Amino acid sequence: MIKAGIIGATGYAGNELVRILMGHKEVEIKWYGSRSYIDKPYAEVYRNMFQIVDDVCLDDNMEELADQVDVIFTATPQGFLAGVLTEEILSKTKIVDLSADFRIKDVSIYEEWYKIEHKSPQFIEEAVYGLCEVNREQVKKARLVANPGCYTTCSILTAYPLVKEGLIDPNTLIVDAKSGTSGAGRGAKLPNLFCEVNENMKAYGVATHRHTPEIEEQLGYAAGKPVTINFTPHLVPMNRGILATEYATLVKKPDGSLPTSEEIKAVYDKYYANEKFVRVLDPGQCPETKWVEGSNYVDIGFQMDARTGRIIMMGALDNLVKGAAGQAVQNMNLMFGFEEAEGLNMVPMFP
Amino acid sequence: MIKAGIIGATGYAGNELVRILMGHKEVEIKWYGSRSYIDKPYAEVYRNMFQIVDDVCLDDNMEELADQVDVIFTATPQGFLAGVLTEEILSKTKIVDLSADFRIKDVSIYEEWYKIEHKSPQFIEEAVYGLCEVNREQVKKARLVANPGCYTTCSILTAYPLVKEGLIDPNTLIVDAKSGTSGAGRGAKLPNLFCEVNENMKAYGVATHRHTPEIEEQLGYAAGKPVTINFTPHLVPMNRGILATEYATLVKKPDGSLPTSEEIKAVYDKYYANEKFVRVLDPGQCPETKWVEGSNYVDIGFQMDARTGRIIMMGALDNLVKGAAGQAVQNMNLMFGFEEAEGLNMVPMFP
Amino acid sequence: MIKAGIIGATGYAGNELVRILMGHKEVEIKWYGSRSYIDKPYAEVYRNMFQIVDDVCLDDNMEELADQVDVIFTATPQGFLAGVLTEEILSKTKIVDLSADFRIKDVSIYEEWYKIEHKSPQFIEEAVYGLCEVNREQVKKARLVANPGCYTTCSILTAYPLVKEGLIDPNTLIVDAKSGTSGAGRGAKLPNLFCEVNENMKAYGVATHRHTPEIEEQLGYAAGKPVTINFTPHLVPMNRGILATEYATLVKKPDGSLPTSEEIKAVYDKYYANEKFVRVLDPGQCPETKWVEGSNYVDIGFQMDARTGRIIMMGALDNLVKGAAGQAVQNMNLMFGFEEAEGLNMVPMFP
Amino acid sequence: MIKAGIIGATGYAGNELVRILMGHKEVEIKWYGSRSYIDKPYAEVYRNMFQIVDDVCLDDNMEELADQVDVIFTATPQGFLAGVLTEEILSKTKIVDLSADFRIKDVSIYEEWYKIEHKSPQFIEEAVYGLCEVNREQVKKARLVANPGCYTTCSILTAYPLVKEGLIDPNTLIVDAKSGTSGAGRGAKLPNLFCEVNENMKAYGVATHRHTPEIEEQLGYAAGKPVTINFTPHLVPMNRGILATEYATLVKKPDGSLPTSEEIKAVYDKYYANEKFVRVLDPGQCPETKWVEGSNYVDIGFQMDARTGRIIMMGALDNLVKGAAGQAVQNMNLMFGFEEAEGLNMVPMFP
Repeated sequence: MIKAGIIGATGYAGNELVRILMGHKEVEIKWYGSRSYIDKPYAEVYRNMFQIVDDVCLDDNMEELADQVDVIFTATPQGFLAGVLTEEILSKTKIVDLSADFRIKDVSIYEEWYKIEHKSPQFIEEAVYGLCEVNREQVKKARLVANPGCYTTCSILTAYPLVKEGLIDPNTLIVDAKSGTSGAGRGAKLPNLFCEVNENMKAYGVATHRHTPEIEEQLGYAAGKPVTINFTPHLVPMNRGILATEYATLVKKPDGSLPTSEEIKAVYDKYYANEKFVRVLDPGQCPETKWVEGSNYVDIGFQMDARTGRIIMMGALDNLVKGAAGQAVQNMNLMFGFEEAEGLNMVPMFP
Repeated sequence: MIKAGIIGATGYAGNELVRILMGHKEVEIKWYGSRSYIDKPYAEVYRNMFQIVDDVCLDDNMEELADQVDVIFTATPQGFLAGVLTEEILSKTKIVDLSADFRIKDVSIYEEWYKIEHKSPQFIEEAVYGLCEVNREQVKKARLVANPGCYTTCSILTAYPLVKEGLIDPNTLIVDAKSGTSGAGRGAKLPNLFCEVNENMKAYGVATHRHTPEIEEQLGYAAGKPVTINFTPHLVPMNRGILATEYATLVKKPDGSLPTSEEIKAVYDKYYANEKFVRVLDPGQCPETKWVEGSNYVDIGFQMDARTGRIIMMGALDNLVKGAAGQAVQNMNLMFGFEEAEGLNMVPMFP
Repeated sequence: MIKAGIIGATGYAGNELVRILMGHKEVEIKWYGSRSYIDKPYAEVYRNMFQIVDDVCLDDNMEELADQVDVIFTATPQGFLAGVLTEEILSKTKIVDLSADFRIKDVSIYEEWYKIEHKSPQFIEEAVYGLCEVNREQVKKARLVANPGCYTTCSILTAYPLVKEGLIDPNTLIVDAKSGTSGAGRGAKLPNLFCEVNENMKAYGVATHRHTPEIEEQLGYAAGKPVTINFTPHLVPMNRGILATEYATLVKKPDGSLPTSEEIKAVYDKYYANEKFVRVLDPGQCPETKWVEGSNYVDIGFQMDARTGRIIMMGALDNLVKGAAGQAVQNMNLMFGFEEAEGLNMVPMFP
Repeated sequence: MIKAGIIGATGYAGNELVRILMGHKEVEIKWYGSRSYIDKPYAEVYRNMFQIVDDVCLDDNMEELADQVDVIFTATPQGFLAGVLTEEILSKTKIVDLSADFRIKDVSIYEEWYKIEHKSPQFIEEAVYGLCEVNREQVKKARLVANPGCYTTCSILTAYPLVKEGLIDPNTLIVDAKSGTSGAGRGAKLPNLFCEVNENMKAYGVATHRHTPEIEEQLGYAAGKPVTINFTPHLVPMNRGILATEYATLVKKPDGSLPTSEEIKAVYDKYYANEKFVRVLDPGQCPETKWVEGSNYVDIGFQMDARTGRIIMMGALDNLVKGAAGQAVQNMNLMFGFEEAEGLNMVPMFP
């Protein structure tokens, strides 16, 4: 039984971490950190936790926390962890960071897209990008894991095998992503009010969303060369779920023909057939966010279009689970040598 | 490890049974019965179950099933179980019936409200009404449990302690209930289309809904006399959740005063403080369906109104869990001597 | 062509006033008042108005406004109008107040329920309660109309004929009301975030909601005696619409029998058959909020319950139209001698 | 005052035609055709029309109808109009067809994508494609107008000026479209049930949707050469609204530079500045479906991405208004010489 602390426990991702860890056999939560609700019972902030969590919220004191717990989850705004991280902290405890602070290796790209100075670039190289299915072995040895973004996890996993195997031209990649509103967080902002979101749909952050360079960096590793893509997020009137529809031009075979649907499927299976949390759908099936809701699964499907020579890839996940808290726990399991799926066997809830 | 069969596995309640039993340590599902989808893989009917359930749907053969399994869940239309039940079946297997066939002791009332003839009234007396918190000991010994209706569970548990202790006049009871749309089932009917339900709210079955006599019978046992109430269901644009708002006139104390809020709370606590799945909220708190979504909890709150001499009681549950599949598993746990909460420790999902 | 000014033009009710007045033949909006958005183009605050409204928002200057316009709509927080109203203003312009400041004749009741001091009680007596179907003749002569609340309009109109004719006992009246979220306004508050409201339902303000005394006062006039009721509002995951489900004990006829359904219907028809905006549904029909969305209609239905001796009355309206801006325009039409339905002929939008 | 008949009056588009025509000064509806509801009062099928429409539904008798009315709207399944149309009918009455029967000039493409034989190809050439902003002059002279599809209207208008002016390479065009559920019609089908759509999002008809060749044909006219595109529709949990996000590679100027944002805006303005129903948003603004709900507007915005050399164009409309009934009325207005916006001045409803 290890001890865990959560900084930012009263955001939606923080609450989802609590939900998941309550069902984890090897972890006990010792610290519900929330600067905004210090001394308030956690169950008063999230009443679903009534009679389940008795603790009160505590301050965001990383140093004290490092003395008390084996792992810290930081579900905090960009810049927080980079601002407080020290070698001493990392020598005492492992960290899974749900913010973007250590996701991007090139600090200048981080600073350009996030518009903030990075306060501890010395830890960037050490940090492991926690996309479990891609970086499993490095995660196992990590002290500091940068948990991927919700859009990013979905976007990368959906295209990764085809980029890695050279079946698509990565610079033609267009990711049109749709997200439930919990991705916008629990802050009281006008655009997130029920009446503004319900019965409405819009794109936002077009050509400027911060998950873009994260997707490009990771797919660049897969491609073996820099990749530039289009990424467009949209807000959908639902609580949870991300659907990424991705378009790319197929690379023709030496004889000028396109790869077949079976060949594409075989490549997906090569990477994911043994991955519990990635479900490659049967040909012709389009993923739906509802089929993965509340679970750690990513569902992936695709459709060839011979008319245009493009492939349409589709991925769906629950942004708070595989897109945030679930993947964070999956990373923790790897870091501590637990069974990778421990605490993550939730069956998707339908309807 | 016992074996379970589900008749009606492809309704929403059936699918929820599958979701819950997948996480139950002592049960293995051996039979996914669905007359409409015979031979079709279950995961093609409910794609959330892809790579989780590999079985195909089978016919609704109770006799064959009785030979193969230890418990049968019948999540079937009214009249099905009454039409096929035999002593031989019951001698071989236990049954948890999610339909109304054995909920009502007076067969004439059943036939009046349900407009069908009861085909096996000889089993009515034996059947135990499976409201676990009220009939726990009888359930433990039962072969046949009549699992309560979703509205009913919520309506009864919310008022039960006050009726039982004589704090309210049961004949003044008015239950105004609101339900998510999954309660209407998965049948393809025009009134349940997205565009008909979304951005809409209505009452239905006013003064005629079939859950009325079930509530009256059970509260009558608590009151020690026949009870007649008003029950009005409403359809709400959400998937899951029932909220019951209940009004009753408080019985004055001998000195003419009304009971205090503390006294009311104490009565609720007397009945529910040790009940894991009933959470009596702190005074002033109103339950919300979202706080129990996906879980087996019922949340109960109340507010006194000295101006009118009435109390407003409120209860919330997830109609597919505590209102159907969760309570069915809770009953099964009692019938087989398992820990009562086994498989039911799902933390409510928020948001 | 008269000139109108709106104070509080950037709330949801204010925007709905703009929508309706854009289609009104006799009115031109000259002043979009909004303290929060001074100098900002109105169409940047409500982008539905792009290329429709070119004006910028102005301050809330009642005195200047009184010089410029024939009618002022105040869609403002409680206390605003009472704080600034003067005889000089009223001598120059007519006012339709969408706040509660002049709805309640007994100032002590206002101050008790609203917890604020009333700054200009001298205008209370003059103010006409603008429930057009009840007070039409007084409205025609009024300088100051107190536009009824959204819950109130629905609650009163649904029960009014039966109270007025003595067919129900008004002190047994219980109003269980359900509202879309636009009734909560456009303020950026956590409980109104999409993820908090969606897939959720709750009661709030139980036994303490401010619309209670307003309903009691008006139904008291109808009953000819003071009336005390229960009123419970609920929040529903939809943008627009109020559904009021109302319960009352029927008054028996001298021979001990209950009134018949036909007799009840006849009474509703007596009051509403000639009212364009009140539609009494055929017996057995339950109103649905979607059937009136975007329009000025109130739909009313009822169901007798001989078992309990009660009647269940149901009313539905669009809280932003008949519950706010539509009724305000209806009042304005009466005050200026326009056709009562001018600008209000919107057909309900479905789906 | 002309007389109109509607065949298919009980579909969602049919009901929207009724809603709009009720507010049209020059038209009277004489025939509510609905094979499924013959002799049933229209207001019983659509209760929003209670006390507004008194007529009963009639059969789909085109010949009788042609004798009685000046214009027929056919809001019918594919193949209906082609199956019954005759020169005699067309000689007596004008027709606005909301189905796809006469949208596509190449009958073999129609038959390939729709999988039905075209029964009256002799009228295809005469039929005018009723995209008013593009084909206004031809529509004015037409007897038979093929009203464009909902996705199509949005997709074409959003890209049309840039294709026409050669600013984008049309064969790089990818249209990722999202639609509210009313587009799926009022048929009682399982995938359209509330619980299947709510809290869910999915793509469908990927690479095979029937609106694809319609978009390609029209953009091909604009480009002056055949165009092949990707079009992917998605189902969104909302009643109304289509959002099209469109990606295309910008054509470089002779000096190798990309067009500027101002140049793009100028091109949009060239085509749409005088179009009442097309609103080109200010740079940086992304359209939202809610801003046009209930109205005949299309809102269009765009964002350049110098990194990839692509432009992201976005268009939003109400699929039942500009995407169906509103555009049909706009076409009718042109055909009969009425003011083009007559009956279509609905201000978008927000929220």
